[in-house]
Formats: sequence, C-alpha cells, structure tokens
Amino acid sequence: MSDEAKPLRTFKLTVAYNGSRYSGWQWQPGETLSVQRQIETAIHQIIGEEVRVAGSGRTDAGVHAFGQVASFSTNRWNAPADRWVRAFNCFLPKDIVVRRAEEAALRFHAIRDSVGKLYRYTIRNSRVVDPHLAHLQWCVHRTLDVEAMRAAAQRLVGTHDFASLQGQGSPRYNTVRTIHTLEIQATDVWEGRVIEINVCANGFLYNMVRNIVGTLVEVGHGKHPPEWIDELLAKRDRSSAGQTAPAAGLCLMEVLY
Amino acid sequence: MSDEAKPLRTFKLTVAYNGSRYSGWQWQPGETLSVQRQIETAIHQIIGEEVRVAGSGRTDAGVHAFGQVASFSTNRWNAPADRWVRAFNCFLPKDIVVRRAEEAALRFHAIRDSVGKLYRYTIRNSRVVDPHLAHLQWCVHRTLDVEAMRAAAQRLVGTHDFASLQGQGSPRYNTVRTIHTLEIQATDVWEGRVIEINVCANGFLYNMVRNIVGTLVEVGHGKHPPEWIDELLAKRDRSSAGQTAPAAGLCLMEVLY
Repeated sequence: MSDEAKPLRTFKLTVAYNGSRYSGWQWQPGETLSVQRQIETAIHQIIGEEVRVAGSGRTDAGVHAFGQVASFSTNRWNAPADRWVRAFNCFLPKDIVVRRAEEAALRFHAIRDSVGKLYRYTIRNSRVVDPHLAHLQWCVHRTLDVEAMRAAAQRLVGTHDFASLQGQGSPRYNTVRTIHTLEIQATDVWEGRVIEINVCANGFLYNMVRNIVGTLVEVGHGKHPPEWIDELLAKRDRSSAGQTAPAAGLCLMEVLY
Repeated sequence: MSDEAKPLRTFKLTVAYNGSRYSGWQWQPGETLSVQRQIETAIHQIIGEEVRVAGSGRTDAGVHAFGQVASFSTNRWNAPADRWVRAFNCFLPKDIVVRRAEEAALRFHAIRDSVGKLYRYTIRNSRVVDPHLAHLQWCVHRTLDVEAMRAAAQRLVGTHDFASLQGQGSPRYNTVRTIHTLEIQATDVWEGRVIEINVCANGFLYNMVRNIVGTLVEVGHGKHPPEWIDELLAKRDRSSAGQTAPAAGLCLMEVLY
C-alpha cells in the first residue's frame, strides 16, 4: 500500500514549553530556535515527513506556554493518536512537552477554529527576586496596591477598542476585542507576594497582555487612579498606556475552541 | 580614622540560589563559576576588600539552595547589617539572592557552629517532564509507591552508620549520623504527582541525600521491600544501595544553629 493510499488524519496537540531559550513560537527566516520548528523537526524524526504545524497563535521570545494548541495533518500515522505523546517526548528537548495528542476533525485548524485564549501573567512583588523561578516571573520591587489594580482591571472587562494597548510591530485594522474575565490573585510567599493576573478574551492584539500588565502596575504604584483606564481606552494611543511588561512573566494557559 | 581603627564585625547571610549554572557552592581551582566566588566578588565590589566567605557546607554542581548560610568578617561596614541585602542584590546575578543579613557574634562561623541541616528533594512522578520546573525536579516516569517509600524512610530515621549511603569522592572516617526526620509528601499536579522528600539530620555525608532518594525510589518501584533498608545499612557498602539521584532535585532548605 503506498503512502497516498492511507487516510489523511489531523491531530491536535496540547503543548507546554519554557520559552526562555526560544525566539518564540513561530519560525521566521534568520531565527535560530523556534518552538514550532522543534516540533516540526520531531515529526520529521518520527515519521520521516516534512509537515507544517499550525499554532493557535505566536508567542514571543521568552514567553511560556502551558496549553498552546497546535495542529497538523499526515497520512503516515496508523497508531492511536495518544501514541504521539511518547514519540514526541522522546525527540523533543526537555523544555518542550506534548501534554496531549488527540484526533481532530480533518479540517480542524489551531488558528482559524480558536474562539478565545487564557493567558496568565505572574508578578513577584518583593524586594528580592526568586532565583528558582526568575524565568517565570516579573519581579516588581515597590509594593503594589492589588485592590486598585483589581478596580482598574474591571474597567478593561467587556468589549472595547484596545488600540491603546496594542504593541507596535503587528498592527491590526480592527482593534476591538472582548475581555471575558480579568482576575487578579495575590498569594503570600517568602519575602513578598506572588500576584497572578489571569486574562481570558476572544482574541488579543500584539503584546496586549504585557501592555495591560504594565498599565495595571502603574495603577498599583498609585501613578494613576483606576478611572484612568477609561481615559486611556478612549485615547486609542499606545503612548498613553504603561510600559510593556517583560516576556518572562507571560504564559499561554489555554486555547478555547 | 584608618580602616584598622573601625571595629571588626561578623555577618551571617541567608542565601538562595539556582545552582543550574554553577559548579557548586565552593570555589575550587580551575572551576569557573561557584556561588561562593560570586558572593566574594560582590563583597569586593561593595567594600573594596577581598574577603573569604564561609558557607555552612558545599552544595554540588546543579544543587540549589533556599537557605544556605554564609558568614564573613570585615571592619569596613558601618551601616546596619540589613543594608547588606540591597547592596548584595545590586551586584549579584539574578540566580543568587541574599535573603537576610544579620549581625552575628564575632566568632560565629557558618560551618563550625552548624548543628544540622534540612534538605528537600523534589521528584516529579509523571510520564512527562514539567518544562517550566525541569531544573528543580527529577522526573521519574514509572509510578512510585509512596507508602512503601514512607515505610522505608522510617527505617532510616535515627542514629545509624550511613556508610552504604556515602558517595565516593569525600570519604569520612566517622560515617555515623542522626536523621531527625525524613518526611515524604505527595501532591497531585497536571499529568502526575510531585513528591517532596524532606530530610533533617545533624550532618550529611557526601551525596547522602541523593543516595537516600535513589534508594527510596528503588523501594517505590517495588525492586526491594522497605525492610531492605536495614540490610543495606548493616552492609556498610555503597554498591548495595540505589543510584545517586540527579542534582537538579536537591535544595538546601535550612541550616540549624
């Protein structure tokens, strides 16, 4: 039986990675290390075929994932879908893990079919860095007013034009998005607190989560009151908002379909 | 007033570090990166003096610390002891943090005065590595019987000759030590469990914790019953025990004085 005669199948992968070493999810000419490329290389090692993998979205250099979703199709796999997990984890480097592999509808596509995403941003609010978790956190030394940050966050929930929070580099014509939830949790840890900011939206503009976090931190430092958010959104001007928070604190937690 | 006229003071530091990049705590000729050397270099940058720092004990290459204790003396510091914290953290790399700096009795010495230590070893028991925490855990794929490991651990508690669990390279004449507590906690996490092994003893032989963990894992895999521990201790022979667990899972939590 020739390869062509076997049925084409589409697989959906759930992937976790430590983005520290990578130039991001997407492979781009001239970039040395991308997560996408590592996965494509592993597929080539497993089934001997050059396959293009689609991710649910790019993550930038240094950004992590717990539940990135990727899809690809091949007619060279006869085993149950779950067997991909062990095969991938034999060939992938330790900082990329395939958590789940499922059979998907033939036309499933990780980008097109996504209806939303959940990101988590982690701040360590302490006078000292946590040396064991420095690659996963933004360490903010001055004490943050979490209640003020929560009040500001509530003003971002809903459908808004987020042009003021869109990073440069990949502009969208339509900058309206809907934030379903934006929750902030603070937990005491040694020498300070860990503040987790969870954002769920139907889509995100370039650097939007990191710009939201930088903006909330300005409110947390008392530089602006929570009501400033309304003003900011109305301006549609990136230079009015806070700084872009560092990549290390960001993690793509889940993609919704 | 000359430097000599200022009073000599002794400081006690509590230090956390991510050992991944380092050849260990102690500086040795020919080794490029040691934690001790980084701290001595920072002191030189702060007060312009070459000071020798004593750690409570060596940690090996790749081993971490949350509460390593170090001491040193100088007559070039006039500020409160706590001011060292900020000064150190300006000059140290991000993977080494001084958590506390206290004034100690002039004759305090981090090694000589120590009466015990608490180590934690972290196992991830899962078919997949956690890519975000891979540098802090030993990933054991086959399911471990935690109850059997606990039963074996109890046989190590107390005063015993631990010659069978002493690593090669730094032999001690007296291999008798007292383990005060050896507790094992298992917590469910995504795709598996995290198993923390906490060992408190009056002193440790070279590689003793990592050899204990390798031995407990053999019991957890059903290769030997918990009673095997008694046999093993009686033999006083390193080759009878389990493998040395990898450095990454080990962390020096606290030094007792």
